[in-house]
Amino acid sequence: MTSPVGVHGYLCADGEVENSRIVLMGVPFDGTASFRPGARFAPRAVRMWSEVLESYCRVFDADLEELSLADAGDIVDQASTWSAVSDCIREAVGAAVGARQSPVLLGGEHLITLPAVEKCFETHPDLMIVQMDAHMDLRDDYGGLTHSHATVMRRVFDLVGSQAVCQYGIRSGTREEWRFSREHGMFFPDADDLAKAVGRRPVYLSVDLDVLDPSVMPETGTPEPGGLTYLQLRDALLKLRGARIVGADVVEYCPSAGLGGPSGAVAAKVVRDLIFLIAEGLDPESKIGSSG
Amino acid sequence: MTSPVGVHGYLCADGEVENSRIVLMGVPFDGTASFRPGARFAPRAVRMWSEVLESYCRVFDADLEELSLADAGDIVDQASTWSAVSDCIREAVGAAVGARQSPVLLGGEHLITLPAVEKCFETHPDLMIVQMDAHMDLRDDYGGLTHSHATVMRRVFDLVGSQAVCQYGIRSGTREEWRFSREHGMFFPDADDLAKAVGRRPVYLSVDLDVLDPSVMPETGTPEPGGLTYLQLRDALLKLRGARIVGADVVEYCPSAGLGGPSGAVAAKVVRDLIFLIAEGLDPESKIGSSG
Amino acid sequence: MTSPVGVHGYLCADGEVENSRIVLMGVPFDGTASFRPGARFAPRAVRMWSEVLESYCRVFDADLEELSLADAGDIVDQASTWSAVSDCIREAVGAAVGARQSPVLLGGEHLITLPAVEKCFETHPDLMIVQMDAHMDLRDDYGGLTHSHATVMRRVFDLVGSQAVCQYGIRSGTREEWRFSREHGMFFPDADDLAKAVGRRPVYLSVDLDVLDPSVMPETGTPEPGGLTYLQLRDALLKLRGARIVGADVVEYCPSAGLGGPSGAVAAKVVRDLIFLIAEGLDPESKIGSSG
Amino acid sequence: MTSPVGVHGYLCADGEVENSRIVLMGVPFDGTASFRPGARFAPRAVRMWSEVLESYCRVFDADLEELSLADAGDIVDQASTWSAVSDCIREAVGAAVGARQSPVLLGGEHLITLPAVEKCFETHPDLMIVQMDAHMDLRDDYGGLTHSHATVMRRVFDLVGSQAVCQYGIRSGTREEWRFSREHGMFFPDADDLAKAVGRRPVYLSVDLDVLDPSVMPETGTPEPGGLTYLQLRDALLKLRGARIVGADVVEYCPSAGLGGPSGAVAAKVVRDLIFLIAEGLDPESKIGSSG
Amino acid sequence: MTSPVGVHGYLCADGEVENSRIVLMGVPFDGTASFRPGARFAPRAVRMWSEVLESYCRVFDADLEELSLADAGDIVDQASTWSAVSDCIREAVGAAVGARQSPVLLGGEHLITLPAVEKCFETHPDLMIVQMDAHMDLRDDYGGLTHSHATVMRRVFDLVGSQAVCQYGIRSGTREEWRFSREHGMFFPDADDLAKAVGRRPVYLSVDLDVLDPSVMPETGTPEPGGLTYLQLRDALLKLRGARIVGADVVEYCPSAGLGGPSGAVAAKVVRDLIFLIAEGLDPESKIGSSG
Amino acid sequence: MTSPVGVHGYLCADGEVENSRIVLMGVPFDGTASFRPGARFAPRAVRMWSEVLESYCRVFDADLEELSLADAGDIVDQASTWSAVSDCIREAVGAAVGARQSPVLLGGEHLITLPAVEKCFETHPDLMIVQMDAHMDLRDDYGGLTHSHATVMRRVFDLVGSQAVCQYGIRSGTREEWRFSREHGMFFPDADDLAKAVGRRPVYLSVDLDVLDPSVMPETGTPEPGGLTYLQLRDALLKLRGARIVGADVVEYCPSAGLGGPSGAVAAKVVRDLIFLIAEGLDPESKIGSSG
Repeated sequence: MTSPVGVHGYLCADGEVENSRIVLMGVPFDGTASFRPGARFAPRAVRMWSEVLESYCRVFDADLEELSLADAGDIVDQASTWSAVSDCIREAVGAAVGARQSPVLLGGEHLITLPAVEKCFETHPDLMIVQMDAHMDLRDDYGGLTHSHATVMRRVFDLVGSQAVCQYGIRSGTREEWRFSREHGMFFPDADDLAKAVGRRPVYLSVDLDVLDPSVMPETGTPEPGGLTYLQLRDALLKLRGARIVGADVVEYCPSAGLGGPSGAVAAKVVRDLIFLIAEGLDPESKIGSSG
Repeated sequence: MTSPVGVHGYLCADGEVENSRIVLMGVPFDGTASFRPGARFAPRAVRMWSEVLESYCRVFDADLEELSLADAGDIVDQASTWSAVSDCIREAVGAAVGARQSPVLLGGEHLITLPAVEKCFETHPDLMIVQMDAHMDLRDDYGGLTHSHATVMRRVFDLVGSQAVCQYGIRSGTREEWRFSREHGMFFPDADDLAKAVGRRPVYLSVDLDVLDPSVMPETGTPEPGGLTYLQLRDALLKLRGARIVGADVVEYCPSAGLGGPSGAVAAKVVRDLIFLIAEGLDPESKIGSSG
Repeated sequence: MTSPVGVHGYLCADGEVENSRIVLMGVPFDGTASFRPGARFAPRAVRMWSEVLESYCRVFDADLEELSLADAGDIVDQASTWSAVSDCIREAVGAAVGARQSPVLLGGEHLITLPAVEKCFETHPDLMIVQMDAHMDLRDDYGGLTHSHATVMRRVFDLVGSQAVCQYGIRSGTREEWRFSREHGMFFPDADDLAKAVGRRPVYLSVDLDVLDPSVMPETGTPEPGGLTYLQLRDALLKLRGARIVGADVVEYCPSAGLGGPSGAVAAKVVRDLIFLIAEGLDPESKIGSSG
Repeated sequence: MTSPVGVHGYLCADGEVENSRIVLMGVPFDGTASFRPGARFAPRAVRMWSEVLESYCRVFDADLEELSLADAGDIVDQASTWSAVSDCIREAVGAAVGARQSPVLLGGEHLITLPAVEKCFETHPDLMIVQMDAHMDLRDDYGGLTHSHATVMRRVFDLVGSQAVCQYGIRSGTREEWRFSREHGMFFPDADDLAKAVGRRPVYLSVDLDVLDPSVMPETGTPEPGGLTYLQLRDALLKLRGARIVGADVVEYCPSAGLGGPSGAVAAKVVRDLIFLIAEGLDPESKIGSSG
Repeated sequence: MTSPVGVHGYLCADGEVENSRIVLMGVPFDGTASFRPGARFAPRAVRMWSEVLESYCRVFDADLEELSLADAGDIVDQASTWSAVSDCIREAVGAAVGARQSPVLLGGEHLITLPAVEKCFETHPDLMIVQMDAHMDLRDDYGGLTHSHATVMRRVFDLVGSQAVCQYGIRSGTREEWRFSREHGMFFPDADDLAKAVGRRPVYLSVDLDVLDPSVMPETGTPEPGGLTYLQLRDALLKLRGARIVGADVVEYCPSAGLGGPSGAVAAKVVRDLIFLIAEGLDPESKIGSSG
Repeated sequence: MTSPVGVHGYLCADGEVENSRIVLMGVPFDGTASFRPGARFAPRAVRMWSEVLESYCRVFDADLEELSLADAGDIVDQASTWSAVSDCIREAVGAAVGARQSPVLLGGEHLITLPAVEKCFETHPDLMIVQMDAHMDLRDDYGGLTHSHATVMRRVFDLVGSQAVCQYGIRSGTREEWRFSREHGMFFPDADDLAKAVGRRPVYLSVDLDVLDPSVMPETGTPEPGGLTYLQLRDALLKLRGARIVGADVVEYCPSAGLGGPSGAVAAKVVRDLIFLIAEGLDPESKIGSSG
């Protein structure tokens, strides 16, 4: 039997994983041991919805087909424990960073950011974390858990310290979280200031899709009214043009009823924006290959 | 058996009904005699979705946990006739107003505003009604009914007279309704003007959630394109900071398929905004208790 | 049996088809031979959702009840082939244009624009086509098809030539499509420029509803984030006030699950806007009748 | 403009209303004053879903195209009061029965059965009412209402008296309702006994679709587990072959989200079964016409 | 303010928790740390859907209003860890069993059965566990977890030993699970045999709702085609009439989109069946009170 | 980067395509040129839902992990024309049959059966086609098309002639189709008779999932009430144990809203049944490999 079309990855991400500059990795984890719904279905859904998009983007004047891009598939099984998932993320991200590849994690829930940041931070001790999110995620513990989607950025802060986390789009938190964020200079109401703070430091960019308004991204675990439009998010991303993004993730998309509604188109397009953004920031002399 | 967590009310609204300054009351009425769908499910849905929110709000710099707030549950059964429902509303609102409490009705359809206004008007003859809505609701009758969601503000007008109703956000009506509204100076395109008109008169604030755009609040009975974003509605509410709000309602949220989608987060957040707004306007010397 | 209320057409479109100036025509075609979903259900859904609207519009200060307006029902069966559908469109549109009526097609997919333009172009060789859309639709072929929703505007271009197609709201296309559009001066980022280009030439106005943002119109076949709000689309339409619109269509509304969610209210309101827009541009001396 | 296909009625029901033996009448009433959901959308949904069926039925070895069948459309507006709706039903059913036509009402809620029975009973004092239903509907009042979907069969009983109501498929009721039903010999666990009781008396056949199990008919207002499969319902109907059915209704189908899911196919097929059943029972000598 | 109707518990379960023979306890746990979907919403949904039912049941010829029945609300918060949840279950079930009450847990996922069985087993060392389920749940570990919905009955077996677990309705398992079940005589294809095995030993009855066919209970986490109809499940339950049921649970109902579709009616009715079943088995001399 | 888990195929179908005895092939074709819904999403959905199943089946006492089974992915792109799709099917099925592999097509719509049968018939001139379906699909043309889901079995008949097509589960057709089927001895009400007719001739088995009742398989393009339960379908399949199935397909599953509801579990389980059925019929001496 000849040349099957195959089980599809993300749009045009058909490079060899080993030879590509940007590598997508699905992390279908949402912390629960059972089958049903939640962010665990997001990697599949993002891949499916990516087909509604063109490979060319006028804003970046770039085409996915011309990039060195691969989709490594899902790097964990759905039913895995957090302990197993975090090991897998560390292994996969560590290998990618070691090979000067930029991993883009397709979550899954926000907790997956932590092990990815750990490995990026090992290689890049001056790493800057940019968090685009509706929620602070700075609790010290939540429901008795120290590791949770609601504490993840506090754990990241514990790891990388002050002056290394920038928050954008936040509109919900406890009184204590707001105090903590301001105290450590983490909160940036303005994307220009954020871009200035980042400068040429290596960046890990984490986009919690609930930074978008629920009208734009209804299919998320904790919708918070009063968020960004898609164009406002893209504008904020464009402020980071040229930044050295060494890792990234897009999290908390929870497709309803399997693969969900058009929130998937939004999620897939944000992923495409990140890919173009990363591609622009790649230093040209170290290109592994032209299209994977 | 010790300390059950209980069947939940609205977020943090766990004060004693008798001792609280602000009292939530569910009114699961949508005019039909049978089980199924419509705004009758909204009080439940608002309570469930309230859990997606924090108790702290940065905009008001206030926390629900510090307020004197109770949830009286649903004050009518779902299968009640309008005659029974309006009696219950008059009794509950009358008792609350008599005890200097501010009732916040969780509709239910817009018709529930009428008996609530009646009781507030008895105590406050200089009452001002602020209607945030997509529709005029000023028909004299509708499908043969004098009391309907489409006539409710005409009945309110009949009761309180000219100069006492302010409309905001309206974008749909018959030619006659538009004429009537302008003739009686009811229509305020600008929230600043509305706030000025209100001044220090006691206010009954009725928010028909279809004042929001259908993209923001798809789950409503009569969606009308071209409405407010959530932030625009909140800005309008903030113009009323410091106003003496003696009663309020949030109506016409119709959760789809039981408890519905993220429209519930919007409805629950508008309720939270109203609570903070009312709390700010309470005269400090008459506080019944600090947290119920 | 006396005076049944009847199977409903679009709101107030109850004139006689032969005697009306504006004639709605359902084209439930989405290119597939089977029952299920897609734009084929849109004409029904638009008619149902039209009932959520008032007949009066304050922006146009006009009432559907005062117009010469008819609903011809669906002019094709759902299971028809494209060959049969395009014949029916040509016949119905040709007859309407010949009788100086303005046909408004309720799609159905975008391909239905082509035969409608063909007949309008026969009568009006100086015809201007205004395309409001998220996508270029300028491919020369798509998946081996020369006639498809993705090629339809290229076929229109082949027919009417340069200087006769104006595109508005486009945000997705291949690199080649963007080049082609710019080369032939088709792309208008600004609605004022578009209105100027149109001037007093006869217009065929095609509104692909995915020009709206997916938050506003989630129920469409190819949602593309970053689109217009309803008010932005209406503003663009209002720029064309007074234009001679000799034909129009509203396409690519794909009601989910039968007749769908509130996207239907948006679709129905855009149709209402088009009707008022066309009515304003009708030359008063040739009126066939006042209300059909 | 020539021969539009038109706004569709029920499958093949394209006879002239005046000249047809069997006349479908939509009654989009569910007792509520507002737009949204409920059985009011059922007539539209039944018509749409009827297209999924063939006109030929092997069980009856008959074809809708060969029958004298018309669809009178909806005989009331959606926003009407019960008083207006019951007047319309009496007028339409009265006219039909007077012309020796068999009306088939497409509900709408169960209360619509009452005025239809009233008119059939005027002409046929020996009328037998067959109620296929999950619920007794024999309460004397419900939530203060004497006329409600939960009291309708009690009102029918008040009108026609003992020995004239046969209940089939019932599985829910109060202790009092069960007692009442048994006392008056209304409850028939076995369809053969029911058919025998009916004999050659004229029949009004009311099918509340919740007689079906919720797995078969999820889209109904009051689903009650433990009901019939579709084939079991059809078998019960077939027991009545040859009966003189002078009127019928199919009620309590509540399409979810507009026109709903495949419950519509079930509803439409039950309607088709009723049509064939009625057609078989028509006395041949009085045929008005062969196909309307 | 007088006599609010209140936030509703399960239908008619309005006794005092302390004085009731049967106590419902919501356990909204599905093992995940975030807000969204899953069995955590089931307790709310079961309570809402219970209103679609009558309090009287003809099969049992009994009425909920005549029973000593209370709803203790939810005994844990949604965001709790398993460690906290299992503590709460042990405390609440232990207290109930100590007071000779029969607790009925409204899950939540199947893992909640374990701590409930632990406490019942302490008091009743001859406890028999009856598991009605589609799946064996006999894995020794699952995805690295020893405590999971897929291992719960193995943990129960470890606790109570051979001859104390009876499985009914199973149709899915690994080869190893099937072997294990047969080896220990746990699998009962026939409900009569099961009832005989149970005899007069005290019973903990666990109903995993996926024992029902997905057509009957689509809203469950792991639907497995080929299951029971509702009537088949009820027949199996009726075989246990008169058994001494000292504890029970109904688990794995996962309402879709908030409070879900008519699966809720099925879940609520199974709960009602369990209540009647337990009530029948109560020893009359020890009744605490007649109606709570 | 080491050992990604990959983009998933059907459960355990992880053999090499070239070396496996049974090869799954996705054919996401539903005849329409646009993105949205329909059977084109079925292959993805079947793969996702397959994860809800165990690899072991007690009825067959077999485990997928022990079979020589591969998933070739999708063999066509979604946007392809029928001409391209039928070429791809012929190529892929031809290659598989030539290599003595049994292809199992995951549709897509029913029309895909035709080219698959063509290639099987070339190699096996005594091929028997078994059609399990609700509909005859024997029209000579449909809506002007000779090749359509409604004509596909007529085209198959034209190819293979009388005595080579067996129909099971049919309950809908035109009078003419029923006549044609009976005339050519195609209709088998009884599965035993069908199995006898098949004997040891090579079989192509086509399962149109609408053979199931809409309560079991609501997500299909043309639901027809009165169909089989899952267990009834499985029983019919089990009658064919030992048959030489040289090719098969499962078609007309139309996941709603992306990857849909639990219909997917049914579809995935029918696929699993087919795999076991085919595996049992394989002649042991020609095994290519034990697990691919």
